[in-house]
Amino acid sequence: MRVLGIDPGTRVVGYGVIDSDADGVSMVECGALKSRADRPMGERLAALYEQISEVVTRHQPDAVAVESPFVGRNVKTALAIGKAQAIAMLAGAIRGIPTFEYTPAQIKQRVADYGTSSKEQVQRMVALQLGLTEPPEPLDASDALATALCHLAEMHVDSLVEGAR
Amino acid sequence: MRVLGIDPGTRVVGYGVIDSDADGVSMVECGALKSRADRPMGERLAALYEQISEVVTRHQPDAVAVESPFVGRNVKTALAIGKAQAIAMLAGAIRGIPTFEYTPAQIKQRVADYGTSSKEQVQRMVALQLGLTEPPEPLDASDALATALCHLAEMHVDSLVEGAR
Repeated sequence: MRVLGIDPGTRVVGYGVIDSDADGVSMVECGALKSRADRPMGERLAALYEQISEVVTRHQPDAVAVESPFVGRNVKTALAIGKAQAIAMLAGAIRGIPTFEYTPAQIKQRVADYGTSSKEQVQRMVALQLGLTEPPEPLDASDALATALCHLAEMHVDSLVEGAR
Repeated sequence: MRVLGIDPGTRVVGYGVIDSDADGVSMVECGALKSRADRPMGERLAALYEQISEVVTRHQPDAVAVESPFVGRNVKTALAIGKAQAIAMLAGAIRGIPTFEYTPAQIKQRVADYGTSSKEQVQRMVALQLGLTEPPEPLDASDALATALCHLAEMHVDSLVEGAR
């Protein structure tokens, strides 16, 4: 199973592709997509959509997992993050790929065992689970890989529950 | 000049197309696009995107104007509205059509002269400006037409300022 994880930000969108098979879990690719802050919002969304679509068509994931952040009480930030999330989800859904949303607490719980783990702890656990010698950089890419790993763990739990029925 | 106005909601997206020429301003079409609330978010966004894209390709607007609401202090609603906004802006921007955002206060100011006008006052002013005998229904469609009229008014003010230089 191949999962594309997305960490949607207003300026930078992190992405990470992982593969899961009988041999375990491995990283395929990760990175950060950027939009020019000096361009109108419509153009920035179109540029991000085209970059995410390129990743989707090149890697053909079976699922897209998007981090859905709690953004405190800042409504303006929430409107902006919602835009980035929508673009990422659409890039998968328009091609018939199931898309999922996970909160930061869910991701930390699934990847680092504790919902209150620090960003650095999560980054180290991502490296460990993917057999990488160094934590993946930048942090946005690592967070995207964590989101993809969270989805795999959720699917695994679901299939265990399904099997026990 | 043809303008597509969009009122982005979490369940219903209102749209309205207006034409402006030497004879004045007229309505081309308006309506409300819906997504099924019982489907996953990715599917709903893809369904809305396809419906808005259909309107864009059929009417070929010169500009897309999207209402950017102040959603009080509810961060969850802001995330959801941001998603609908992004889908609408993308449908224009991906085809090279300039997209614009206007706040409710800007729209009320431009369409009904006062930023504090009631929804019914705005609806009546939309009907008056477009020469309609009845206020356009549903309210989402009327709000979308108001957003399109707001954009026309902004462009008119800009060209007056430009001409005075």
